[in-house]
Amino acid sequence: MSAVAAKESYLHPLDPATAEEIEKATALVKQLFFGIPLHFKAAGLDEPPKRDLSAYLDAEHEGRPLPPLPRRVFVEQYQELPRDFHGPVDRAEMKEAAEVVMKDPNIDDTTIVLDPWDFGVDGTETQERHTQVFMYICNPENNDPDSCHYSFPLDFMVIVDLVAMKVKKILRLPLGVDQKTTEKNPPRTTMKPYQVIQPEGASFTVKGHLIEWEKFRFCVGFNWREGTTIHDVSFMGRKAFYRLSLSEMFVPYGDPRNPIYRKGAFDLGNVGAGVTANNLALGCDCLGVIKYLGGHVVGNDGTAVEKPNAICIHEVDQGIQWKHTNHRTKNATVVRKRQLVLQQIITVANYEYIFAWIFDQSGEITYETRATGILSTQPIDADAKVPWGTRVGDGVMAPYHQHIFNVRIDPAVGGRNNSFVYSGSVRMDWDEELNPLGTGYVTKETTFHRASSVQDSVADGRVFKIVNPNIENPPGSWHWRRSEFCEAPMWVTKYQDRQLFPAGDYTNQSLGGTGIKSWTTHNPDPVVNEDIVAWHTFGFNHIPRVEDFPIMPAEIAQMHLKPYNFCNYNPTNDVPPSNQEFNKSVLYEDQQAASADLCCRNKL
Amino acid sequence: MSAVAAKESYLHPLDPATAEEIEKATALVKQLFFGIPLHFKAAGLDEPPKRDLSAYLDAEHEGRPLPPLPRRVFVEQYQELPRDFHGPVDRAEMKEAAEVVMKDPNIDDTTIVLDPWDFGVDGTETQERHTQVFMYICNPENNDPDSCHYSFPLDFMVIVDLVAMKVKKILRLPLGVDQKTTEKNPPRTTMKPYQVIQPEGASFTVKGHLIEWEKFRFCVGFNWREGTTIHDVSFMGRKAFYRLSLSEMFVPYGDPRNPIYRKGAFDLGNVGAGVTANNLALGCDCLGVIKYLGGHVVGNDGTAVEKPNAICIHEVDQGIQWKHTNHRTKNATVVRKRQLVLQQIITVANYEYIFAWIFDQSGEITYETRATGILSTQPIDADAKVPWGTRVGDGVMAPYHQHIFNVRIDPAVGGRNNSFVYSGSVRMDWDEELNPLGTGYVTKETTFHRASSVQDSVADGRVFKIVNPNIENPPGSWHWRRSEFCEAPMWVTKYQDRQLFPAGDYTNQSLGGTGIKSWTTHNPDPVVNEDIVAWHTFGFNHIPRVEDFPIMPAEIAQMHLKPYNFCNYNPTNDVPPSNQEFNKSVLYEDQQAASADLCCRNKL
Repeated sequence: MSAVAAKESYLHPLDPATAEEIEKATALVKQLFFGIPLHFKAAGLDEPPKRDLSAYLDAEHEGRPLPPLPRRVFVEQYQELPRDFHGPVDRAEMKEAAEVVMKDPNIDDTTIVLDPWDFGVDGTETQERHTQVFMYICNPENNDPDSCHYSFPLDFMVIVDLVAMKVKKILRLPLGVDQKTTEKNPPRTTMKPYQVIQPEGASFTVKGHLIEWEKFRFCVGFNWREGTTIHDVSFMGRKAFYRLSLSEMFVPYGDPRNPIYRKGAFDLGNVGAGVTANNLALGCDCLGVIKYLGGHVVGNDGTAVEKPNAICIHEVDQGIQWKHTNHRTKNATVVRKRQLVLQQIITVANYEYIFAWIFDQSGEITYETRATGILSTQPIDADAKVPWGTRVGDGVMAPYHQHIFNVRIDPAVGGRNNSFVYSGSVRMDWDEELNPLGTGYVTKETTFHRASSVQDSVADGRVFKIVNPNIENPPGSWHWRRSEFCEAPMWVTKYQDRQLFPAGDYTNQSLGGTGIKSWTTHNPDPVVNEDIVAWHTFGFNHIPRVEDFPIMPAEIAQMHLKPYNFCNYNPTNDVPPSNQEFNKSVLYEDQQAASADLCCRNKL
Repeated sequence: MSAVAAKESYLHPLDPATAEEIEKATALVKQLFFGIPLHFKAAGLDEPPKRDLSAYLDAEHEGRPLPPLPRRVFVEQYQELPRDFHGPVDRAEMKEAAEVVMKDPNIDDTTIVLDPWDFGVDGTETQERHTQVFMYICNPENNDPDSCHYSFPLDFMVIVDLVAMKVKKILRLPLGVDQKTTEKNPPRTTMKPYQVIQPEGASFTVKGHLIEWEKFRFCVGFNWREGTTIHDVSFMGRKAFYRLSLSEMFVPYGDPRNPIYRKGAFDLGNVGAGVTANNLALGCDCLGVIKYLGGHVVGNDGTAVEKPNAICIHEVDQGIQWKHTNHRTKNATVVRKRQLVLQQIITVANYEYIFAWIFDQSGEITYETRATGILSTQPIDADAKVPWGTRVGDGVMAPYHQHIFNVRIDPAVGGRNNSFVYSGSVRMDWDEELNPLGTGYVTKETTFHRASSVQDSVADGRVFKIVNPNIENPPGSWHWRRSEFCEAPMWVTKYQDRQLFPAGDYTNQSLGGTGIKSWTTHNPDPVVNEDIVAWHTFGFNHIPRVEDFPIMPAEIAQMHLKPYNFCNYNPTNDVPPSNQEFNKSVLYEDQQAASADLCCRNKL
């Protein structure tokens, strides 16, 4: 650890693994397997067990001397997996597979673009390690490597054996091609600059990975699989959450035809939201005063690979927080709604996901996903229509699919032991005495006694109202068996160290049976007044529109965590009133005059 | 009309009624009833019939000579209503009722604050015109008229006969008092300024009431009842909507006890979103470059009352519109998401509503409601708990209630005749040949043939996924009978001139039977490929939290209108890439240094 100590005098137990730490760990592994060439898949901070970390955090909060807590690095693939389990794919492996495909004597076009995907299982040859490669060409008019090749899908695909690193099969896709497309238009000139100025700086402070903002205090972590993680959240000085993370996502496709029916991607478990994190750029991905945080993942050779600027931290103004006018005195107070956003963007082949943890002055925490990037496309006959996809261009079809996310919520509301209750509204029966006009309704609370899951109920106004995961596939399909968390919007389990991934630790070509359903089925743990974890699945059913192509306007889904009788009053009560001295707004008419002025001056 | 002509050379048929027009109309009515004292309730633009206005708008769009189209003013209460119908309440009437209550010999406390409410019916004495008055006192510690009197509810209420203008009944409320409360804290100092600078001005243009922004073009109207209305919307030069409006809202309360069971407010039909519109202030209610529009309503004496700055128009940056990185070439493009917001705020007694029509570059139109202001409270015994309310302070209980909105969508997608289809996703049956892995799903479209309504279905991924209105009251209650639109989230009717209000034209003390259910029940109109209107009901079930008191952090609900295969490609395709030259973002570290600098300089 001396190399580390030389660079940073103090590392918090939750700080992401540094380059030095990762390389020290991989060096130890290399020493152990001396002489054997190794291919590293994943490495990062091995977070301390909850008992130890809780004791440390308590001491930290109370200003007591900090107990010693060793920093450990997790390295994946140290142990041999059972034959049906497959470690995640990585870029080197995918690149090698692409090269193998390109060298195949049956494929000889230099304009070809390959899209290697993780392999959705079909129940056969489950012990073999595969990838599936979709095939496109560059725009034939210019052969530009940055043209939108998803407008030019080819009518065949390739299966590669990743262990032998050989083309295993070349498969025709169901239907033929006839391609034209819309490439990007020249940029419009109508949109005038919109700048966020924070003359006194940001309202948040960052010390290492500790963020303090308004009445929130929390730590930010980063790892290869989940990307951004949020730890030790308190609000108004009171503990609220031990850990928050996006734990898994699954994107099953609805095209039932062979060989496309294997399209079903676990983008966290198979690829990793840390591995695919974008390097965010000043003035592009956020406005105002920005703080960037980054982290490290492991390269295949065991060296640390920096993921710089993986997380951007900034404030946004979200309109009005609250307003009231006393109509008797005409006095009005209006306060604005300031939010703190921790944004991360990942690129997974054709798609981009923009993930944001949004903290609000009202104590609300929102998790937002935006799906953008480019639809995954397939070729289609000139006049064909299919009921499971949208024609988005000539000869180009985008199949229906779902984006299903699971957020893992490890709460610490006022302490470690919590219960999980869902609440709905039910009407009261008509009653001469108690409900004479039939207008009465009350709330009904249901407490979870054993680790379990629960469906949503919009009709009952159930408190976790969310977009339903829309599980469209009948029980039994491989997609269904593998993505256990998609079966319910809300799950509750008893905390277990390292139990973080609701589709199982190894999602790549997984067969199911190792995820959250297993943890809640046989003699499930008691969860009343225990150290519990809630897992919230949400998402949307993406029936592609033509407007989603060639690139998607970001589709936004949000999850909200709100304080509920946690505070004694509205926590935004003391936000200063909104006024012109602070906000410096400009009248349209004045601005028109000023900009006409500017325009004239520019001409002189 | 000569007075009008002198002030503004040209009025568009959709421009809100001017002061001169309103007063000219009321003068005509006064002349007709010469010698009889009149109390005017409502007046405003009488929008032209669709046939005439469509012809005018078509000529306008095509640059042909404009056909003559007279401007007419609507004045409410010109005709005698059937005995069970009651015109809306107004501030003068409510003020008079409050004065009557204060003069009652049984009430003698000068610290009393009155909250007159529209009268939720109980089925008795339905031909009498009533108001119900809830009673509070100012904070006894300072007797400040701007203290939060909702923290000090009294244990009785008064019913006033509005025709005789006499106290009719004083009624005890179910439970007693013991009040203390949380008044506002001193403002926090942690929030630093956040300013939106638009150095080249706004990206929108306003000519009269015509707005052009990015690829949208539409007109803005304003009237006493609906407040902001949106007309003649086109996107990318193609017709999209004829008219958009918030048509009604209903707020039924769930406390079943006599006499509180009459709490059920129609805030548009009984009061009016134009009448209660706030005068918005620069630098308080929005940021950046602001254009204000206003309008006029009628005073009780027939004079025009200006509602200045009722609508603020401004742009917001909503994060990222789209992004893609080609992982092969490492080239990334990111464009920001600019929106145009038309915001209006109304104060209805204790509550504020913030309404916004939000136009997005992607062609999406969002309707957003924020509920804020102060919970309506009742007294409660020191240790009592009730299942239909939340204790928000000592001796203070906020009953459960719902906010149910209906948006009227009068579409013109590519022309006047449209059909209404809802679409859900259904799984395909397993089939050796067609769906061998059981992963297939398709969409199923259902077309409305007759005017009707439809429930939502989150499980089916039905396209109009919304917050459910949560109709908690069993069929038969007065709340239920009166608020017909709340029965379904989506209704479709054939267009009728002046059919604008889904709970009926006269909502005050209404008994039901004159709203949207009647229009869709007996031999409903055909609606396939016709001039149709869609009505979307949404809302939320408000189970008060302690955090909602004394003032509510705005609760946000949104409705989205998205182009669906309306364009040929992503309409934001040509938004210029996001870059630092345009956005002028600032690094946290640089800003920290600059503000330390500033701080030092200030000290010198």
